[in-house]
Amino acid sequence: MSDLQERAQALDSADELAPLRELFTLDDTVYLDGNSLGALPRHVPARLQDVLTREWGELRIRSWGESGWWTAPERIGDRIAPIVGAAAGQIVVGDSTSVNVFKAVVAATRLAPEGRDEILVDANTFPTDGYIAESAARMTGHRIVPVAPADVPDALGPRTAAALLNHVDYRTGRLHDLPGLTAAVHAAGAIAVWDLCHSAGALPVGLDAHEVDLAVGCTYKYLNGGPGSPAYLYVAARHQAAFDSPLPGWTSHADPFAMTPGYAPADGAVRGRVGTPDILSMLALEASLDVWDGVGVEAVRAKSLALTDFFLECVAAYVPEGRVTPVTPAAHAERGSQVALRCEDAEPVMGALIARGVVGDLRRPDVLRFGFTPLYVGFADAERAARLLAEVLAAPAA
Amino acid sequence: MSDLQERAQALDSADELAPLRELFTLDDTVYLDGNSLGALPRHVPARLQDVLTREWGELRIRSWGESGWWTAPERIGDRIAPIVGAAAGQIVVGDSTSVNVFKAVVAATRLAPEGRDEILVDANTFPTDGYIAESAARMTGHRIVPVAPADVPDALGPRTAAALLNHVDYRTGRLHDLPGLTAAVHAAGAIAVWDLCHSAGALPVGLDAHEVDLAVGCTYKYLNGGPGSPAYLYVAARHQAAFDSPLPGWTSHADPFAMTPGYAPADGAVRGRVGTPDILSMLALEASLDVWDGVGVEAVRAKSLALTDFFLECVAAYVPEGRVTPVTPAAHAERGSQVALRCEDAEPVMGALIARGVVGDLRRPDVLRFGFTPLYVGFADAERAARLLAEVLAAPAA
Repeated sequence: MSDLQERAQALDSADELAPLRELFTLDDTVYLDGNSLGALPRHVPARLQDVLTREWGELRIRSWGESGWWTAPERIGDRIAPIVGAAAGQIVVGDSTSVNVFKAVVAATRLAPEGRDEILVDANTFPTDGYIAESAARMTGHRIVPVAPADVPDALGPRTAAALLNHVDYRTGRLHDLPGLTAAVHAAGAIAVWDLCHSAGALPVGLDAHEVDLAVGCTYKYLNGGPGSPAYLYVAARHQAAFDSPLPGWTSHADPFAMTPGYAPADGAVRGRVGTPDILSMLALEASLDVWDGVGVEAVRAKSLALTDFFLECVAAYVPEGRVTPVTPAAHAERGSQVALRCEDAEPVMGALIARGVVGDLRRPDVLRFGFTPLYVGFADAERAARLLAEVLAAPAA
Repeated sequence: MSDLQERAQALDSADELAPLRELFTLDDTVYLDGNSLGALPRHVPARLQDVLTREWGELRIRSWGESGWWTAPERIGDRIAPIVGAAAGQIVVGDSTSVNVFKAVVAATRLAPEGRDEILVDANTFPTDGYIAESAARMTGHRIVPVAPADVPDALGPRTAAALLNHVDYRTGRLHDLPGLTAAVHAAGAIAVWDLCHSAGALPVGLDAHEVDLAVGCTYKYLNGGPGSPAYLYVAARHQAAFDSPLPGWTSHADPFAMTPGYAPADGAVRGRVGTPDILSMLALEASLDVWDGVGVEAVRAKSLALTDFFLECVAAYVPEGRVTPVTPAAHAERGSQVALRCEDAEPVMGALIARGVVGDLRRPDVLRFGFTPLYVGFADAERAARLLAEVLAAPAA
């Protein structure tokens, strides 16, 4: 056993979160793609079976009340709240991240002081945020200003209505300064909208503490909600009364079953709803969140940084000089829970790595992406991934 | 056995669709709320179990390709297509009905000739369509003109950009003249958007034959997709190239995994997508659609009319004079697949009826609603429902 393998073993033995791995369905694959699709918590299939056979099959329509279907969006939102540092009553679950970006960006322009016509958008954003923000801008008479997050403070001004930023860059794994940038946005009198897809469940977000205005995120990455599970929308309590949704569907009505022709928005998080909640996916997500019982996000963050540090160390030790370049920052304050490595022949390399049982993913054209989910990834996984990556890179090209 | 009970027995014996009931999980309840939540097809839980344990649990991220997750929205759209009279390639599944109404109404205003500023909306529409159309109008600079469907021809004019209409009224069960109204909308040079929530799966729609422009519908009523299962959007092939979505999420991009900052829409039905497809709900819906194999919608319509005729006949025979008034039209050409009865004390009456094992629903303040799903409701169900309704109405008020 090499020195790094011994260290991995010792780190795993000392890891207080290590037993959580047993809560998930995993095999001997090293699964480093939980930042794309989280692994299956073992107990979810049995829960869904009950939802299907008893709640839908036997109770049918009664389940909207008796099985708590109707209130699921806010109930599950309140389960996500502590993970992202929000008090209860501010998060609603439903729709896709893209749809929630639309709600948030349009609503942000309506919360902003009148006469401001610019929306700053992270120039390196996950594309959907940019596409949707562009549509929101077109429909509200604003213009999009693409700007690297570091340059946001300089780009802010009296024309800025809102800024749409990613907490962690999906490609590089760079963690952006949510407290500092939010404060800068506020100093300019604008509204801060954060996309938490790549941070929620991996590190502390502190939505309330940092006075974020609006936020969105998906639940199928570090929250393990299942493929395409519903996203969520956070509207800070102080903005709820003025939150003016561009998608005022019937379930966000103050009295939805009155079915009145005129729209009157509900108070609170409910106002962020649109249509009928997607129950099967939503309740799979709710069950998945059970793995968080008793788990603090600070402990998750500590393990995440230890894991990515160790992986980077193993890569440096094993991989032939010059074959890969980390694009994820070395500084902890700037690192999310993934390691992205630039690699000239990334596509065949990732293919060969997956064939050897290490599942990461590729961001075209040249980024190998390794996501570390602290709930189920261990240090031996990190060592093995780096070792097999080195093997692949040492092999003659196909 | 009464005469009506004997007739019910004979009608059930002669019913070629009667064996389909065995495909569903039902008990001795008379379930007449399939127009709100369709019953569970028996085989769906086993299919979802496989999706959860094998596709998500074992294959994980590989399932986007290997299990056909990525292409599910259009594949399932093509399963719905024959049920609503559409050729393949025009329907995409995803999001809620409300979100699809937003896409369709905004896109309709962009397809309409320039300079038109009115959107006609069914004045009796299911509320969400009206709320969302109002938001779409606000964001596109149009104004909403509420109009009863029968008055649409008179309300159409050179200012009409689009008309948003319900095929079957959710409250009264009235079937509107989709071919005639669509032709009238076209004669005025406008775009016809139809909401099929209460017709798809219960009667022929003929989207292609009647040259409908855009349509939306839910899948949890007569299509039995499960609680809050994803809705669908139909964009007629001739409009696809000009379809300009207000929600251009990344999965509707021509090359989504290139993750380019600029949006370039995909061709075809894919363009109607928004975010990551909601796989669990979507694949439950796909499995549910298996009950349609070999079933023609014309046979379903014939049984639906026979069922609602028979129910109305039983109500007339059993229920004390003057206690209920049908608001569903007697004429077949104007009737969907539900019977709505006006009843002064509708709320306690429905409560008492449900307690006796007949599940319909209530539309406040005074409508008792009975939905007839021809795939699993029989004539004996109709007779029993009318008989127990009469019992409830004859009992002294609580």
